Amino acid sequence: MKIYLAGPEVFLPDAVEMGRRKAEICALHGLSGLYPLDNVVDRAAPDASLQIFRANERMMDEASAIVANLTPFRGPGADAGTVYELGYMAGRGKLCLGYSNDPSVYADRVRNFTAVEGRDGRLVDSVGLTVEDFGLSDNLMMIHALDACGCPLVTPRVMPSDLWRDLTAFEACVRVAAQRLTGRPTPG
Amino acid sequence: MKIYLAGPEVFLPDAVEMGRRKAEICALHGLSGLYPLDNVVDRAAPDASLQIFRANERMMDEASAIVANLTPFRGPGADAGTVYELGYMAGRGKLCLGYSNDPSVYADRVRNFTAVEGRDGRLVDSVGLTVEDFGLSDNLMMIHALDACGCPLVTPRVMPSDLWRDLTAFEACVRVAAQRLTGRPTPG
Repeated sequence: MKIYLAGPEVFLPDAVEMGRRKAEICALHGLSGLYPLDNVVDRAAPDASLQIFRANERMMDEASAIVANLTPFRGPGADAGTVYELGYMAGRGKLCLGYSNDPSVYADRVRNFTAVEGRDGRLVDSVGLTVEDFGLSDNLMMIHALDACGCPLVTPRVMPSDLWRDLTAFEACVRVAAQRLTGRPTPG
Repeated sequence: MKIYLAGPEVFLPDAVEMGRRKAEICALHGLSGLYPLDNVVDRAAPDASLQIFRANERMMDEASAIVANLTPFRGPGADAGTVYELGYMAGRGKLCLGYSNDPSVYADRVRNFTAVEGRDGRLVDSVGLTVEDFGLSDNLMMIHALDACGCPLVTPRVMPSDLWRDLTAFEACVRVAAQRLTGRPTPG
């Protein structure tokens, strides 16, 4: 069974190594991890971004599930590319799993992230827009998409020391994916 | 024909009025706009966020298309909820349209948004992750999903004075949607 490995770690300096580690964990659980950087794309080509898009979409269509790294990225929320892919897989009726290495609540991150003040009891951001505040880890659309699959967002109790490289929560998702897709319990 | 109206304007103080204006524009073009806040949800209920998720999903399933407001939101990228919905509709094979009221390129926004320095010629953000830099308005997954539908992201040449309320680019999307879904040219 193939699973698509979505997340902003493709932007790390050691992105390829991260993919290798994720695929290794998948293999341990009898799954084949498909990592965006496995696609051979000429990143200097004029249509490089389109090639990446198409290759990622092909990978998603091949996969039976997605594991999305929804750790907040350049702001209070998850990486947009990852979120898009999560939505796409949900739309395809595929199994959706996600994790975040930051256990905090979305509204608290916005509190810390931008100048925020209460007006009429509402939590608002620095330009006056309401901050979604349901005590969830991130935007409700993502969180409940995961819930609807019976696989709620996985987060650690405390933030790991290496936010972008700790794969404990990731592995917890892979374990559930393996059980759901193969019906067999897996190591660990 | 029904179209789903996705965007972070649901967080504005005048969110309901914005929905009314968007629906009015849709009606002008012979379309019925479905706006998340049209759903009656008890926002004080313990499961309010789940109710909203389910209501939005029902609306998307009813709709033939999505128009996504991808104006950067609390950071360099689009609102995660909107991006998820875009992915979902793409996954469902629905017609996807999007707009942003900020015409700038993603990498430039990251340059302005976080401490960024070049290393080995790469553009990196303040924690050392590579910045996607294809000269696109936002994350390539979203941009090319729109392209794939034959409806590229709409942006103004210059940023409108009211970033969150100017509906010119939105209307351009609605016009294309109307043409694509009904085969008839529409006013304007």
